[in-house]
Amino acid sequence: MLDLNAATWPEVKEAVEKGAVAVLAVGALEQHGHHLPLSTDTVMSQGVARRIAETIDGLLLPPIAYGDAWNNEAFAGTISLGPDTIRAVLIDIGRGLARGGFKALVIINGHFGNREPIALAARALKMEHGFPVLHLDYPGMERIASEVCDSKPAAPTFYHADEVETSMMLALAPELVRMDKAASEYPVFPKTFGMEAMGLDTFNRSGVFGDPRPATAVKGEALMAGILEQSVRLIQAWLSKVG
Amino acid sequence: MLDLNAATWPEVKEAVEKGAVAVLAVGALEQHGHHLPLSTDTVMSQGVARRIAETIDGLLLPPIAYGDAWNNEAFAGTISLGPDTIRAVLIDIGRGLARGGFKALVIINGHFGNREPIALAARALKMEHGFPVLHLDYPGMERIASEVCDSKPAAPTFYHADEVETSMMLALAPELVRMDKAASEYPVFPKTFGMEAMGLDTFNRSGVFGDPRPATAVKGEALMAGILEQSVRLIQAWLSKVG
Amino acid sequence: MLDLNAATWPEVKEAVEKGAVAVLAVGALEQHGHHLPLSTDTVMSQGVARRIAETIDGLLLPPIAYGDAWNNEAFAGTISLGPDTIRAVLIDIGRGLARGGFKALVIINGHFGNREPIALAARALKMEHGFPVLHLDYPGMERIASEVCDSKPAAPTFYHADEVETSMMLALAPELVRMDKAASEYPVFPKTFGMEAMGLDTFNRSGVFGDPRPATAVKGEALMAGILEQSVRLIQAWLSKVG
Amino acid sequence: MLDLNAATWPEVKEAVEKGAVAVLAVGALEQHGHHLPLSTDTVMSQGVARRIAETIDGLLLPPIAYGDAWNNEAFAGTISLGPDTIRAVLIDIGRGLARGGFKALVIINGHFGNREPIALAARALKMEHGFPVLHLDYPGMERIASEVCDSKPAAPTFYHADEVETSMMLALAPELVRMDKAASEYPVFPKTFGMEAMGLDTFNRSGVFGDPRPATAVKGEALMAGILEQSVRLIQAWLSKVG
Amino acid sequence: MLDLNAATWPEVKEAVEKGAVAVLAVGALEQHGHHLPLSTDTVMSQGVARRIAETIDGLLLPPIAYGDAWNNEAFAGTISLGPDTIRAVLIDIGRGLARGGFKALVIINGHFGNREPIALAARALKMEHGFPVLHLDYPGMERIASEVCDSKPAAPTFYHADEVETSMMLALAPELVRMDKAASEYPVFPKTFGMEAMGLDTFNRSGVFGDPRPATAVKGEALMAGILEQSVRLIQAWLSKVG
Amino acid sequence: MLDLNAATWPEVKEAVEKGAVAVLAVGALEQHGHHLPLSTDTVMSQGVARRIAETIDGLLLPPIAYGDAWNNEAFAGTISLGPDTIRAVLIDIGRGLARGGFKALVIINGHFGNREPIALAARALKMEHGFPVLHLDYPGMERIASEVCDSKPAAPTFYHADEVETSMMLALAPELVRMDKAASEYPVFPKTFGMEAMGLDTFNRSGVFGDPRPATAVKGEALMAGILEQSVRLIQAWLSKVG
Repeated sequence: MLDLNAATWPEVKEAVEKGAVAVLAVGALEQHGHHLPLSTDTVMSQGVARRIAETIDGLLLPPIAYGDAWNNEAFAGTISLGPDTIRAVLIDIGRGLARGGFKALVIINGHFGNREPIALAARALKMEHGFPVLHLDYPGMERIASEVCDSKPAAPTFYHADEVETSMMLALAPELVRMDKAASEYPVFPKTFGMEAMGLDTFNRSGVFGDPRPATAVKGEALMAGILEQSVRLIQAWLSKVG
Repeated sequence: MLDLNAATWPEVKEAVEKGAVAVLAVGALEQHGHHLPLSTDTVMSQGVARRIAETIDGLLLPPIAYGDAWNNEAFAGTISLGPDTIRAVLIDIGRGLARGGFKALVIINGHFGNREPIALAARALKMEHGFPVLHLDYPGMERIASEVCDSKPAAPTFYHADEVETSMMLALAPELVRMDKAASEYPVFPKTFGMEAMGLDTFNRSGVFGDPRPATAVKGEALMAGILEQSVRLIQAWLSKVG
Repeated sequence: MLDLNAATWPEVKEAVEKGAVAVLAVGALEQHGHHLPLSTDTVMSQGVARRIAETIDGLLLPPIAYGDAWNNEAFAGTISLGPDTIRAVLIDIGRGLARGGFKALVIINGHFGNREPIALAARALKMEHGFPVLHLDYPGMERIASEVCDSKPAAPTFYHADEVETSMMLALAPELVRMDKAASEYPVFPKTFGMEAMGLDTFNRSGVFGDPRPATAVKGEALMAGILEQSVRLIQAWLSKVG
Repeated sequence: MLDLNAATWPEVKEAVEKGAVAVLAVGALEQHGHHLPLSTDTVMSQGVARRIAETIDGLLLPPIAYGDAWNNEAFAGTISLGPDTIRAVLIDIGRGLARGGFKALVIINGHFGNREPIALAARALKMEHGFPVLHLDYPGMERIASEVCDSKPAAPTFYHADEVETSMMLALAPELVRMDKAASEYPVFPKTFGMEAMGLDTFNRSGVFGDPRPATAVKGEALMAGILEQSVRLIQAWLSKVG
Repeated sequence: MLDLNAATWPEVKEAVEKGAVAVLAVGALEQHGHHLPLSTDTVMSQGVARRIAETIDGLLLPPIAYGDAWNNEAFAGTISLGPDTIRAVLIDIGRGLARGGFKALVIINGHFGNREPIALAARALKMEHGFPVLHLDYPGMERIASEVCDSKPAAPTFYHADEVETSMMLALAPELVRMDKAASEYPVFPKTFGMEAMGLDTFNRSGVFGDPRPATAVKGEALMAGILEQSVRLIQAWLSKVG
Repeated sequence: MLDLNAATWPEVKEAVEKGAVAVLAVGALEQHGHHLPLSTDTVMSQGVARRIAETIDGLLLPPIAYGDAWNNEAFAGTISLGPDTIRAVLIDIGRGLARGGFKALVIINGHFGNREPIALAARALKMEHGFPVLHLDYPGMERIASEVCDSKPAAPTFYHADEVETSMMLALAPELVRMDKAASEYPVFPKTFGMEAMGLDTFNRSGVFGDPRPATAVKGEALMAGILEQSVRLIQAWLSKVG
């Protein structure tokens, strides 16, 4: 495994020639309540991406630290890229990897709002540039969360500043977590949620969705391990096909 | 000073209301010879940005870890954003800061190829969105380098993987520097350098421009101190005008 | 209710002045197996849109007959608009409605691939042009389908040329349905489905997902009635807020 | 002839393999006085397109129901696509046809404002994608109109909600025509008409240009027949060249 | 009248404050047979623009020397801007004039292929920026040509390197005309001319459409005088409205 | 040498077949004080370009008479193209030259603000279209100016309406120079000049930077001769490589 932040070009040259795969985390700078940092989605996705790169002997790219979190913009410090900009960033990186002889790219997405730009970039890179991209959204998280967590998510598969994310942050970057400020909020979703452009602040006060208080690093490790296992299985199935 | 990677939204809210200024480093993922990491420009610009934010009590944004280094693309691991993408990233961030009530943005640029996209983003943000941006390219570096360095740059104001950059990296992230691999190269610049699209690999073998061997952390600290002092002076003059 | 295909401008003028809401179906030209026409998603969404317009006394726009069905492109006759084009079409229409004094727009989406372009258009129209848009994806369909259908979907909430869609087509346009050609196919989804750019033809032979054979017009009417009821409830809640 | 709205993919596959040509009508949603519907240009162009498709055994695509009618926007219900959006729609469709193995595309334009976007799309499809497109604007209409009509057009080759269009609508969709509301208007064109951006409402009150009252379905059939004959002759000459 | 090529900024300041109108010629770099220069459309439109500026005491801008002449590209030296580029050029200039306090812009178009980009720029400038633009295509030319010329045009209103253009060039820039190389060509237009993307070289050998041989400077002056008179009349009518 | 403004297509055809190189000046319409015309940068760059074309037997294109001079926009008559528009213009021209069989393009830039758009166009033309472009910014000017001029520039390599430019204009177009209005101004540059979007009018009153009064045509000829010699040397070195 090679971390491109630390590597030199001759090292990358050697790894690329051996067929190493690039791994890229896409996070966000987005509010995560009073107890988690704005970088939560970046820290988590980069944490998962690093473990994946270690396991598959991949080339770990620097993470994208900004995502599309426009619906949390009313919470201070939430700074977004537009969806077209995210797509452009990923296409530029993917084309650079393709020109550089990289074999393939695995994207680890840490933020819901990035899904579509990532999917569109992957489509463009495959269809127009013939470069294979696999994009993962924490595969297996829902199942593991239901096993290890004591609290319920605010909505199905909706994990934001809750027990799941707080546990993973406690495992990855405990120095960034203020458990003393962790508080529960189960907002009532408006009927037309997801059907109109709507700021989350219109029905959520703290920035938390669910109950972060039962979070522990041990649960976070379990979540990470499960996601890692499932991710690696998917990557290997995919590589056997695109390789 | 608030590091947005570590801060929570209520902390940012308070700082913004007090009129804090945002500070953003723009780096690159670019070859820097056999002894410096691909992240050199990001580490350096973020190092300077952090000290500036500390001095002016600013809000430090996560750095942009990719720049426009197309002319080094032949060296493995150099992965670029196109100039239009960089501009779009900066405009999105600037507009988000403006909507979020931030007072102003200081950009610390760590890579030559980013200059024009940054200048164009600053122009658009001021002219179209009324948001003030100051962009700094290590002010004072040339003077200090001529004072503290023992080697000559490969060309005037051209510092790349040389004594200047290696010294700053030794001051900021010594664990990423392999002095045992540091070697000197003074390439002969083609006559039409800067007058046509030209890969640097066509006349540079190692990725080094100059002689990194005399580099020391002490010199790096002197460079950082000088740049910091000059930067803060400029920022304060500017803020007294735009504020 | 006014069908804009049939209406004259003085009639529309009067309706707009009374505060009527526009209703727009977005369909697709996409393969739907051997027994359903390429226009299935357009016929269905326009059928639902018409009933909604009748119920809320809305202004029914001509449907968009092309969507983003790139992953079915290997099946002949599937002709798509790119996601940016769909977004542009919807923004142009929405801005025209806004300039024309329309109060709001309800979009009835009939094709999964259109979801994100529609959501982005709705965001742009609200954020940049202050024009409210509600976009519905057959609300309630999953619940009603589970009640009235005898077959299972090929995957959760994945309805394509199956009992659900065939029933709705039998209710709306029986002359376009060839039940004699209806055949069942339950394809095995690749592990990385939804995680990479992938043509559906790589694992689906007929174009059918599920079993269309138990479909009846009566089931189709039940589906339509349930979707209509749920849609109207959402629209009224929303109008009471944006109005 | 195959109507893609009604056809299934195996039918299209067979037709494409036999070398069938696609036919696409481009209309508008535009005011047409007090007696003709907003869909007039779509109904007419689709009517002509259908007869052409029948005659040349072509593949009839769903029509584009929105055009660029910005200069009639002051009349309620006139909703336009911008010229760049129309071009994008046509290029997407043309590229899809090209990828799908279609031999060529014939566009039947029903609205003056669409001419240039269609011509630019045709140019792009031929020059960049090697796909042949023929675009027809009711060839022969002027000659036949001068033969069969009793009234004069409001300006040479300017037919809008007049005897020509009303006759064709009476032939194609009499249920959409309200002859009791038909009234004559011969507006005085401003001197700088066509030389500046100008809404037609600034000199036209009813939306009618000319006198629709002498219109009959028989005249409409004569117009259709003449346009069809001339169109087919042009298509066959063209196909013998591009085929 | 002020020629901006020769004027200084204080002179322009004074003229703008007095309400002077800008005049801009848009030409082309396009083949004009063996006897006329590539700059013919620029020379002619700038010649007309200069006389108009003299007559209305306008501000004459430098001409745009490139147009959209793609269909003559097979003739050497024909170098075009794409239609979107021309539009962007005109919108940038128009917005600059608007910001600079200019009252209005008159565009003198010298090349058929520029018509639509000019019209779209005028529309954008009026609708989005509230800046009035009048665009003229040699008004009156057809009538005067029919009066003063001895030869017939190759097609109605189609004047290219013929008696009309050659006469105007003899009046404006006789040193650029080689009458000894003037030869007649009346090409047979393909049936589908104007209905498909088609290079003019496919049916025209010399680049001439018509017969330039009877051309004289006297005829050219008559053409210029008639166009000037008609143009000024239109401009004055328009200014009395937009002023 | 062939001036494309005066040449006919058969002449260009012959020159292109012989391998002639295109030469294009890019100027500006920008204030140059009270004594120099707005066209100064265009006149100068076209003057240099013409001499280069004469020396290398090149094909001289019509100059681009508008550049990016946004920071002088407060001075009347300064009308700019945006940087993206300039890039598009140059890419269109370059692609046209490439399609037309031209061997290469030399761009003579006469205005600082055009540098980056020119460099980006050159990069795109080389990387995407394989067409070689050399772009020159008056090579050697600094050295010759220091030799022949009696006054100092307002800042290093900053020549605007000063002795250098005035001398070149006296050599090239003395009829456009009003020496009686020439006056000196040495503005104090703000500390953050070049680090923020800033109009030059905020610290410059007359539009002059430096002292134009010692200017003479003889000095201008010396400057032109030196630039020409240096330019031709660079072009020949470059052609021997790209040819």
